[in-house]
Amino acid sequence: MVNLYDDERLDYLLADETMKIIQSPTAFAFSLDAVLLAHFSSIPKKRGKILDLCTGNGVIPLLLSKRTSAEIIGVEIQQRIFQMAQRNVTLNDLSHQLRMVHGDLKEMQTTLDQSSFDMVTVNPPYFKTPSASEHNQNEYLTIARHELYCSLEDVVKACKLYVRPGGKVAMVHRPGRLVDIIEQFRKYRIEPKRIQFVYPKQGKEANMLLVEGIRDGKADVKILPPFYIYEHDGSYTKQAKEVIYG
Amino acid sequence: MVNLYDDERLDYLLADETMKIIQSPTAFAFSLDAVLLAHFSSIPKKRGKILDLCTGNGVIPLLLSKRTSAEIIGVEIQQRIFQMAQRNVTLNDLSHQLRMVHGDLKEMQTTLDQSSFDMVTVNPPYFKTPSASEHNQNEYLTIARHELYCSLEDVVKACKLYVRPGGKVAMVHRPGRLVDIIEQFRKYRIEPKRIQFVYPKQGKEANMLLVEGIRDGKADVKILPPFYIYEHDGSYTKQAKEVIYG
Repeated sequence: MVNLYDDERLDYLLADETMKIIQSPTAFAFSLDAVLLAHFSSIPKKRGKILDLCTGNGVIPLLLSKRTSAEIIGVEIQQRIFQMAQRNVTLNDLSHQLRMVHGDLKEMQTTLDQSSFDMVTVNPPYFKTPSASEHNQNEYLTIARHELYCSLEDVVKACKLYVRPGGKVAMVHRPGRLVDIIEQFRKYRIEPKRIQFVYPKQGKEANMLLVEGIRDGKADVKILPPFYIYEHDGSYTKQAKEVIYG
Repeated sequence: MVNLYDDERLDYLLADETMKIIQSPTAFAFSLDAVLLAHFSSIPKKRGKILDLCTGNGVIPLLLSKRTSAEIIGVEIQQRIFQMAQRNVTLNDLSHQLRMVHGDLKEMQTTLDQSSFDMVTVNPPYFKTPSASEHNQNEYLTIARHELYCSLEDVVKACKLYVRPGGKVAMVHRPGRLVDIIEQFRKYRIEPKRIQFVYPKQGKEANMLLVEGIRDGKADVKILPPFYIYEHDGSYTKQAKEVIYG
């Protein structure tokens, strides 16, 4: 058993009801973005080591554990949310495979081995600077959503530091930042190889970006078929259902 | 009247049969890429100056002339193809609006005013280095398709040189070069603002990329809805018909 604090609640991770996850509407609740990233990433199936930066309540390691027996380490900077992630490992009996680490991705050199991970996944803060009102409203969410403790460059630099040459880095972000992301990936020699844009529905602009690069990879990127979330009637598309319901 | 040489033929430019174009299967024949670029570009409607680099037989200036009364200059490096472009202007009675220039886009400083164009369009060579066999087979097509006389960087540098600050640059290319294109656009301060991926049909990877940037623009790119060419039964999609049949 694990304890729940404050406004935390216990949700099913996916509709298949095989895993549970502790969430909190005021501290951290996972979004479709994390689910799509976990689905998109070309993770090593059996052996290997995966690092998930900005792990939050550990949603991506939990999802990946269904697809791989590789060791997965999650890093979270916020103490309260890190503790949620730890309890999520216990709750799902995954201590043999998943480990959560409390720390700042810019300063993990003493904790994590450099150039040692086969894959790094990250769902980083999307927005540049929070307004003062957002900042005051909820510190937990502000830190998770805004580049307050880490910039996009800090994130990409950390990915580069811990992924092995030839290893993969997968990120979910907003399409508006595509140019910044590509610039940073190139700067740190993570060559983008697969990009998928996610569209809310047909005829709309993309509102999510999935990108996977290879450290020291050869330049040549594939643009995968579009991923649509909703049909015109507002129901989930077949492809969204497959990801969300497993 | 204009003369036709060698294997040149006279085609309708679009299915609406309002314009004709001289083409040659062995020297230069336009592709759907040019038609999509002309359609994608946010050209100035009335006044203004447009530059089309790598203009070939002038297909993009001809197409744009249907949408704008702006002055349009095309630049082509190959003498024989430049002459086709010139005859295409005469053939369609467009000498008051279109002008074709024979020259190398890397060396047009004495012919074109720098930072003076509201829009630069370009359908550049897509491929890096031709094999010896391709090279020997057909010099005209090899030059048009391969980065023999101009690299991607030469092209972007020329766009930057002739577009005014705040002016637009629109390019069609292969999606595999997205990362190179973004890197070069940023290097020359043409900020990508609109990107559209073209897919042969649903469920396939993109095979064409349309990108428009603004010189000295603010970073924030929109990913437009996907453009599909064919339905599953091999017929043109509604959106492709609208572009091709006008």
